[in-house]
Amino acid sequence: MRWVLPEYIQDALPAEAAKLEDLRRRLLDTFRLNGYQLVAPPLLEYLESLLTGAGQDLQLKTLKLVDQLSGRTMGVRADITPQVARIDAHLLNRKGVTRLCYCGTVAHAVPSSLTATREPLQLGAEIYGHAGLEADAEVIRLLAEVLSIAGVGTSRIDLGHVGLFKALVRLSGLSADREEPLFDCLQSKDLPGLQDLLRGVPEAVRQGLLALPTLYGDAGVLSKARGLLPEDAEIRSALDDLEALAAALADLPISFDLADLRGYHYHSGVVFAAYGGRSPVALALGGRYDSVGRAFGRGRPATGFSLDLRELAAQVADPVQAGAILASGAGSDGFREAVAALREAGESVVIELPGHEGTWREAGCDRRLVLRGGAWQVEPLQGE
Amino acid sequence: MRWVLPEYIQDALPAEAAKLEDLRRRLLDTFRLNGYQLVAPPLLEYLESLLTGAGQDLQLKTLKLVDQLSGRTMGVRADITPQVARIDAHLLNRKGVTRLCYCGTVAHAVPSSLTATREPLQLGAEIYGHAGLEADAEVIRLLAEVLSIAGVGTSRIDLGHVGLFKALVRLSGLSADREEPLFDCLQSKDLPGLQDLLRGVPEAVRQGLLALPTLYGDAGVLSKARGLLPEDAEIRSALDDLEALAAALADLPISFDLADLRGYHYHSGVVFAAYGGRSPVALALGGRYDSVGRAFGRGRPATGFSLDLRELAAQVADPVQAGAILASGAGSDGFREAVAALREAGESVVIELPGHEGTWREAGCDRRLVLRGGAWQVEPLQGE
Repeated sequence: MRWVLPEYIQDALPAEAAKLEDLRRRLLDTFRLNGYQLVAPPLLEYLESLLTGAGQDLQLKTLKLVDQLSGRTMGVRADITPQVARIDAHLLNRKGVTRLCYCGTVAHAVPSSLTATREPLQLGAEIYGHAGLEADAEVIRLLAEVLSIAGVGTSRIDLGHVGLFKALVRLSGLSADREEPLFDCLQSKDLPGLQDLLRGVPEAVRQGLLALPTLYGDAGVLSKARGLLPEDAEIRSALDDLEALAAALADLPISFDLADLRGYHYHSGVVFAAYGGRSPVALALGGRYDSVGRAFGRGRPATGFSLDLRELAAQVADPVQAGAILASGAGSDGFREAVAALREAGESVVIELPGHEGTWREAGCDRRLVLRGGAWQVEPLQGE
Repeated sequence: MRWVLPEYIQDALPAEAAKLEDLRRRLLDTFRLNGYQLVAPPLLEYLESLLTGAGQDLQLKTLKLVDQLSGRTMGVRADITPQVARIDAHLLNRKGVTRLCYCGTVAHAVPSSLTATREPLQLGAEIYGHAGLEADAEVIRLLAEVLSIAGVGTSRIDLGHVGLFKALVRLSGLSADREEPLFDCLQSKDLPGLQDLLRGVPEAVRQGLLALPTLYGDAGVLSKARGLLPEDAEIRSALDDLEALAAALADLPISFDLADLRGYHYHSGVVFAAYGGRSPVALALGGRYDSVGRAFGRGRPATGFSLDLRELAAQVADPVQAGAILASGAGSDGFREAVAALREAGESVVIELPGHEGTWREAGCDRRLVLRGGAWQVEPLQGE
């Protein structure tokens, strides 16, 4: 069975490919109108470069292979964001604000979930060089625009802040080797495991960490958090940021999830997850990752979002595609001109090849160009 | 130096990425108007599937890695054409003519030449299901249209026919293990090596094989070939095909190169190479590969062409891109409406973020939206 694909890997056949191409163009156009410049980093890089500033999750997701030219290990990119941070840090080398966007295939060694593909078509936008909340607000607003233009809409955007967990870990006095298990317990909402790990941790901090998974929902979450989390400058500042951001985005369906740490290994501040369509999982993820630029040797504030265009496309109705016109009579007078005029008008015109009668409907034709009484006419394609 | 890319691998920065995106859209639109449906096969497949029907050159070019889910060897595609043949043979499963096109990144373990990239952006179009020369003529005409729409033009299209070499090998009586060295000698035009290999081969066939590398140029080549190549039904039929095809394409700059065997390992009939722009090497290659479908268990005639969009883009002048408009005064009355109106008109509008005075030119801005006397106006961006 030489034609069977690996698990979690799919072809995009004509209907899906047309939908992806249409979405790709409309979303990249939206980015351009918003001042984001397109870049296209490569599929393959040296592994150390792909994983710079990224966490262990990306390491596990990245397919490795040996570069025959250098003998060094290369990876197939599993995420484009760190590549774009590299471009901002070293290739463009601008002093001010840089807005970049991209769309390309990434590969995952293992799927992110049982319903995920191992070849997402990652599309995203990033702002470099501005540390203020204006940048976070802009990318979240852009994300909502993207979901709207895709025809999916935004049902909810959850905000979180990586600084909360970081501050609690610092206050807990736990050794560095217990941070990872703590993170895992929080992610899986494993309360008994959490209780166990937090033995001996100062009570206020322990209560704060145990409260984190309960802090999700509407604006009330922030005041609840101010009561439940320990008094600390970093925690206060994170909650203030979230409050200011929500105020700046009051026209969007903003809510909160303070235990959402999905991008924890490379994010550094405000993070967000957007929901829409009929999808139970987030369609797009984003947030601050100031630390990635730093790892490339040039610390630049950074925020942005990305989504899998295939997952987004699954939420979008198939566009109504006009059928093609079968052009019969090649060689007759005026044939080429008639075909050219139809194509000029945007019609897909299929030239009839001899000996395939009765098979043109499966090729997508629903009309026929024929010469009738000296004039070229388009008629419905009858019974074939 | 974490930001150094592997040799023969490049980022596409904004100017190049915009050019590639523009070309990609215009060429895929051309395919659509000509009735070619877009498909997007995956980056990764099991190796045996990627290499089915392909030759040793593709095997050497294909990067291999282990699929953690199955333990089987996967490859990163080095050529999309066999993938599209697989889609035609097994997924679409149509009885009649199928026209497909694609555009995607492929990876090569080693570069094809000292000036080639290891990550071509392969774009191509294929016709399945029609064995007649009408299909060959259509794809060659489409290729010329593509080069014209790209703004490069076609200086020359060389036709060849793999059947000539195959017939000569058959007539030579050489054992199968000497076919490959013979092929290599012909490709490198190594005459002493050729003389050596052809010892003992019937004189007419020997003369034919030695003549092959001299058979290139204008229409005179075909009659010269009829004189120099041995009398044989397969040879006569191949030369007749080339003559008929050249007649059908009389309005294009057709010439011949009967020793061009670049696609020999998977091609099966007429092959062609198109030249244009200032490029000394062919910009696009194509031809018949009826054997690939057969290897997938469903023999379907096939012909098509492909090109590297990055190589094509290098022949195209940078499009003149309008600069962006820097929008100052967020929060003022009518700001959002003014920005939306400019974007509606197709302008790229960058929202000013506070504290970055003097850096907006490097971000591509050449004008500024400002509130003057109660009205929003676009002015040249002065001295910053």
